[in-house]
Amino acid sequence: MVKNDMTAQNLRSAFGGESQAYQRYIVWGNKAEDEGFPGVALLFRAIAYAEQVHAGNHFKALENIKGGHLVASGGEFGLGKTTENLEGAIAGERFEVEQMYPAYKLVAKDQGEKEAIRSFNYALEAEKIHAKLYEEARESVEQGQDYQVESVSICSICGYTETDGMPDKCPICGAPRDKFKEFTK
Amino acid sequence: MVKNDMTAQNLRSAFGGESQAYQRYIVWGNKAEDEGFPGVALLFRAIAYAEQVHAGNHFKALENIKGGHLVASGGEFGLGKTTENLEGAIAGERFEVEQMYPAYKLVAKDQGEKEAIRSFNYALEAEKIHAKLYEEARESVEQGQDYQVESVSICSICGYTETDGMPDKCPICGAPRDKFKEFTK
Ligand SMILES: [Fe+2]
Ligand SMILES: [Fe+2]
Ligand SMILES: [Fe+2]
Ligand SMILES: [Fe+2]
Ligand SMILES: [Fe+2]
Ligand SMILES: [Fe+2]
Repeated sequence: MVKNDMTAQNLRSAFGGESQAYQRYIVWGNKAEDEGFPGVALLFRAIAYAEQVHAGNHFKALENIKGGHLVASGGEFGLGKTTENLEGAIAGERFEVEQMYPAYKLVAKDQGEKEAIRSFNYALEAEKIHAKLYEEARESVEQGQDYQVESVSICSICGYTETDGMPDKCPICGAPRDKFKEFTK
Repeated sequence: MVKNDMTAQNLRSAFGGESQAYQRYIVWGNKAEDEGFPGVALLFRAIAYAEQVHAGNHFKALENIKGGHLVASGGEFGLGKTTENLEGAIAGERFEVEQMYPAYKLVAKDQGEKEAIRSFNYALEAEKIHAKLYEEARESVEQGQDYQVESVSICSICGYTETDGMPDKCPICGAPRDKFKEFTK
């Protein structure tokens, strides 16, 4: 539920951005697979699902604002080598962490929009981890090596992301282990 | 590959629209499942995949235009009862069929953008089918009945959608049967 137009607009913009991030990561994941980087492909596909969780949260927060809207969202484009695609992914995650979500959270707090605050905060905290993981992956690929990872676990409530393990309780939202979805190669 | 700014902008807009449609249909599909309409849920989830195919095609046509861009896309919002969600889905598909894709195709033709023409045309032809299927589903749900369907098959090249069957050859793009993905309940 959302009451204020500005927060509704920010939720729509964030929904558009997360929706595009999902599709971009699916395409870039397939490219990584084709280039012989199954670990990077796994990372892209699992994080795509985390973006789906964020998109769904923003969309649900907008449940009471029905009908057609024009949505303006920032997004990274281009399909190149996996190093370039990881560069794009890092740029997108950093924009969300450093600019977009802090700004949207600030406005939501000022407007007392509880559901939006939660939805923006879940995304913000998860994107910090995504930026770090993509940076690690880029480092590996730049040295001609695949990213070393066996599994990636995603919290279906907030998009929290953990490699090679699953917490008993989500450190972002507190959800129990059975709310996690594990991705493998 | 795209050469002209206007077609690039239209591809980005269409990519944004398709990316959002995917996420919307996933959320509305879960809602249909919760309301006891597994046939409608199947339809939403399968068509979501068709929108993923469209998003991927548009994104690949933009492969040479790298970096961050602001993307403006139309989208339907709101999470209500399944009849309302189907209403939103029909409105979105009709907008694409009657307004968006014909306009984008016209510009792409004028600019000689072969890859964009193909990508827009694949989507346009598939959306016509989506609009019709969602209308059928709405009719069932308005009478308190689930949509009667056992499987939905999607062409992974163009998003062509067929209920309870799979063609030998895709009627939109000509792809063989092994390029189809079948969704069941
Ligand atoms: Fe996200
Ligand atoms: Fe992210
Ligand atoms: Fe969580
Ligand atoms: Fe589509
Ligand atoms: Fe469609
Ligand atoms: Fe096809």
